[in-house]
Amino acid sequence: MTEYPKFAVIGGGSWATAIAKMLCVNLPEIAWYMRNTDAIEHIQQHHHNPNYLSSVEFNINKLKLTSDINEAVAYADYIIFAIPSAFLNGELQKLTESLKGKVIFSAIKGIVPETSLIVGEHFHEKYDIEYDNIGVITGPCHAEEVALERLSYLTIACGDATKAKIVAKCLSGNYIKAKITDDIIGTEYAAMLKNIYAIAAGMAHGLGYGDNFQSVLMSNGIREMKKFIRKVHKMKRNINNSAYLGDLLVTGYSVFSRNRMFGNMIGKGYTVKSAMMEMSMVAEGYYATKSAYQLNQEYGAKTPIIDAVYSILYEGKEAKKVFKKLTDKLD
Amino acid sequence: MTEYPKFAVIGGGSWATAIAKMLCVNLPEIAWYMRNTDAIEHIQQHHHNPNYLSSVEFNINKLKLTSDINEAVAYADYIIFAIPSAFLNGELQKLTESLKGKVIFSAIKGIVPETSLIVGEHFHEKYDIEYDNIGVITGPCHAEEVALERLSYLTIACGDATKAKIVAKCLSGNYIKAKITDDIIGTEYAAMLKNIYAIAAGMAHGLGYGDNFQSVLMSNGIREMKKFIRKVHKMKRNINNSAYLGDLLVTGYSVFSRNRMFGNMIGKGYTVKSAMMEMSMVAEGYYATKSAYQLNQEYGAKTPIIDAVYSILYEGKEAKKVFKKLTDKLD
Repeated sequence: MTEYPKFAVIGGGSWATAIAKMLCVNLPEIAWYMRNTDAIEHIQQHHHNPNYLSSVEFNINKLKLTSDINEAVAYADYIIFAIPSAFLNGELQKLTESLKGKVIFSAIKGIVPETSLIVGEHFHEKYDIEYDNIGVITGPCHAEEVALERLSYLTIACGDATKAKIVAKCLSGNYIKAKITDDIIGTEYAAMLKNIYAIAAGMAHGLGYGDNFQSVLMSNGIREMKKFIRKVHKMKRNINNSAYLGDLLVTGYSVFSRNRMFGNMIGKGYTVKSAMMEMSMVAEGYYATKSAYQLNQEYGAKTPIIDAVYSILYEGKEAKKVFKKLTDKLD
Repeated sequence: MTEYPKFAVIGGGSWATAIAKMLCVNLPEIAWYMRNTDAIEHIQQHHHNPNYLSSVEFNINKLKLTSDINEAVAYADYIIFAIPSAFLNGELQKLTESLKGKVIFSAIKGIVPETSLIVGEHFHEKYDIEYDNIGVITGPCHAEEVALERLSYLTIACGDATKAKIVAKCLSGNYIKAKITDDIIGTEYAAMLKNIYAIAAGMAHGLGYGDNFQSVLMSNGIREMKKFIRKVHKMKRNINNSAYLGDLLVTGYSVFSRNRMFGNMIGKGYTVKSAMMEMSMVAEGYYATKSAYQLNQEYGAKTPIIDAVYSILYEGKEAKKVFKKLTDKLD
């Protein structure tokens, strides 16, 4: 497989672990960066990530594990970022190696809080990476099911179709089917927005709304997402493709989604602060809500669900009242 | 409420019971036909349907219960049919009363097996009812959640908007929001087709596919449904509205759906016959699959999911192999 470029995975979480697993099927070696040196040691000794998808066994001969992001970046031609968006800026601050000429793929589903940009835009605007060297890896895909080797479909977006194909090929396998698209902006916004709808689904559940309402919420959610993305980047896309609708559904219907769980707690009466403290980390959708809401002040798409979630998370409005009003705006 | 027409509900099952409950909120009286005389007696004595949604309490002063379909038809201006499609033809055989001038609403989600027509078409072609007097009541709506008075949205379709509005008004209430549309054909086909996708979802689950695949299946399902309905009746419709996508989701994600359960058994290795015997009644989607498949021989829409379900249910193909092939056709 010498024809393949060198890959680095940035991140030690479940999605990074899933991506490392997929790449190892097809590649002789990958670099894998994570901050946690204990985790690295554990993987080296026991061949499993102790913290995420711990059932997955790695052939450590294939892994160049490092806690130095510069080492990983220097090694690779293709760098896949799979860390929470809230940590991206901090990690990038550590870079002394140049990203020039590297192909950057984002497997992050969120907004960079410091710049309110989606990851592709952040690399383009802040690191001067051309869009042909930027890509997105998107689901619908729970990392946990990759660990179980359950059939999953990925969508690989890149302005340069050749690069999208390379990444798709390196991730594909018996239980992974990957298709390509040139809609970098749309797929990344979809991956970000769906977390807001997952928060909304969780809130609805916590408030006692049932499955009938959940289906109406998702049906309105995908229409809202379509309008929003269309404003951000107008192009021909079928919003019902797996990268958009599928990704919304796999998250919005998942009882394991952190975003849905976060919303659920708020629906049940937790304050935003106490819900955040109760969870070990902030749900991506929390930042996404603010950014999407603020962006939409400019775009003016009709987004009653995003507006509702925003008013609960950032304006201290009562979830019960906000949802009561929201139900009149849905159909 | 003297301005309202007189309603009859035909059927004693859970959806009929839910509709009777909704109507009783707004109307002083309704006729309610069911075959089962024991059930009628029970409702009269105990104010509950013993067999379905038994928690729902009825004000029996509002109910003209009858086991004579002709009595119900003679009484009503608007007749809502809510019986399994497999029993419709048999019930209609009993009619001596004319349906002339009556407004017929179908709350049946299926195909009339004897004619391979959806219910609206059946009344139009076999009983010469004009399309302006034919309507459809569609979800997304589990009857069980109506019993619990959980917020649910209905779509009321009729060629004559005034009639749709009347039905919408008579069904609406604190926990029911009803909107209208003129897409009788599309909503009824959607309600029928979604049962096929629910069978497919059940089969996938039974075969061990996970949530990632389920979301891809639903995402492909709605695109397939759009193509199919477009061939049947081309008009401007947003397939992501609740009556189409919402209805697909509420059924496809429901572990209580009979259709999904039926598919699940087959996925787990039951034969079609034994799965049918195990369930107390035939799932609507079983007939829908045959009709949709046959219809599509003429229309030629690309429907790999329907084709797959058909080949398993009617051609004795092995679910595992069929799904393996199907996964290559989805994206």
